[in-house]
Amino acid sequence: MNTDIMSYFDSRATVRAYSPREIPADLLRSMIEKAVHAPNTGNMQWYSIIITTSAEGKAALSPAHFNQPSVTSAAAVLTFCLDLNRFEQWCRMNAAEPGFENFQSFVAALIDTSLVAQQFCTVAELNGLGTCYLGTTTYNAPQISEILALPERVIPVTTVTVGYPAAEPSGPTWRLPVEAVTHYERYHPASDADVARWYAPIEADSQRFVEENAKQSLAQVFTDVRYPRESAEYFSKVYSDFLAKNRFL
Amino acid sequence: MNTDIMSYFDSRATVRAYSPREIPADLLRSMIEKAVHAPNTGNMQWYSIIITTSAEGKAALSPAHFNQPSVTSAAAVLTFCLDLNRFEQWCRMNAAEPGFENFQSFVAALIDTSLVAQQFCTVAELNGLGTCYLGTTTYNAPQISEILALPERVIPVTTVTVGYPAAEPSGPTWRLPVEAVTHYERYHPASDADVARWYAPIEADSQRFVEENAKQSLAQVFTDVRYPRESAEYFSKVYSDFLAKNRFL
Repeated sequence: MNTDIMSYFDSRATVRAYSPREIPADLLRSMIEKAVHAPNTGNMQWYSIIITTSAEGKAALSPAHFNQPSVTSAAAVLTFCLDLNRFEQWCRMNAAEPGFENFQSFVAALIDTSLVAQQFCTVAELNGLGTCYLGTTTYNAPQISEILALPERVIPVTTVTVGYPAAEPSGPTWRLPVEAVTHYERYHPASDADVARWYAPIEADSQRFVEENAKQSLAQVFTDVRYPRESAEYFSKVYSDFLAKNRFL
Repeated sequence: MNTDIMSYFDSRATVRAYSPREIPADLLRSMIEKAVHAPNTGNMQWYSIIITTSAEGKAALSPAHFNQPSVTSAAAVLTFCLDLNRFEQWCRMNAAEPGFENFQSFVAALIDTSLVAQQFCTVAELNGLGTCYLGTTTYNAPQISEILALPERVIPVTTVTVGYPAAEPSGPTWRLPVEAVTHYERYHPASDADVARWYAPIEADSQRFVEENAKQSLAQVFTDVRYPRESAEYFSKVYSDFLAKNRFL
């Protein structure tokens, strides 16, 4: 085991604030070349990456991401999209009738797009860059699609902002103990005592969020403030309508 | 840029045949500890990993993966599941009413589960192991769920078989040129001439698949043999029914 590299995986953290330093174009291209060697279904590469580096482009995307500052401060904003358009074009050019207007094709493409995004982030971080995923991509997919001029059958999945970090990285982020997320041979439901013990460290560290939001527990901060039902239901309809319009549902 | 590590990303390939050598339990655990440092939505860690190392467990899973030999020959079979069960248990223990019974929560959890799977594969391959993703996981999710005793709100997403390679890795797999999958500032639809040029190398290398299957083009091998519409539509219904039963749709 290469200890230096392995310690990177233990200590990485998301970076949301970037220096103004640009990413050399050949480095960005080379990192994407490495990212696309991530595994994918049948080697069909059902994804495209839209790279926004212009100030105007970043400003146009910013509202779709609820003006999170990492969008405009990043050297590059990469919108990872699942893309059936290119593959289906190739099929039709070759007298092959594509049968991908269905949910399984959506799920396969969504997974493959995620894998290439994650391989990109790993490569970028190992090159000294900082990255941040934007989950807002699936909320405002129709708006992002319009800004990026996406054709039919191309769906925004996730966005990665990337740039040189403005400050030293903060060090590893808390995670559940590995026994909380692993099960041997079959799933073993956790007792309430297990769950309480696993979450105790983050609850202790997050008291200020509970107080700031006048809530009774950290869990309520998640359910009532950060990820409220109404918002999730609204954006579920927006995304599934968009998928239906693009013949995935 | 660390050249040694960067060349790994250019040259990695899927490994489907493994030696009988076991993976030390502490190495497997350590690799999963590194994998869970992949980014995830709100640090809610909506995933679980079911680890199958017993011969009986692998034999039970094998038919769900259409008896692909990598399942029984791998030292370990890791079924990556999206898991709302644990987080919702924590919410209910803390007087918080979870609002995650919707499509956005499914999509977020699916992406996060994919990212942790990919980080696991990267760590495993950098430790000299070989990995293979099984896309059959979303086809036979109900069957896999039963074998692994998954509770409600836990959904199989992808499976990774992992073990020491039986032979020297085959070297890098062909990919589309990077310009085929990247777009600057906005999507630029490809001309048929572009698409023909991009796919020419894989078409030339895959003539035997076209002949073996008595097809007219490689694209027809994909649409008619490997990923036929009827199969994708059937398994789309199986997976979406299973998601509906688990209150994600």
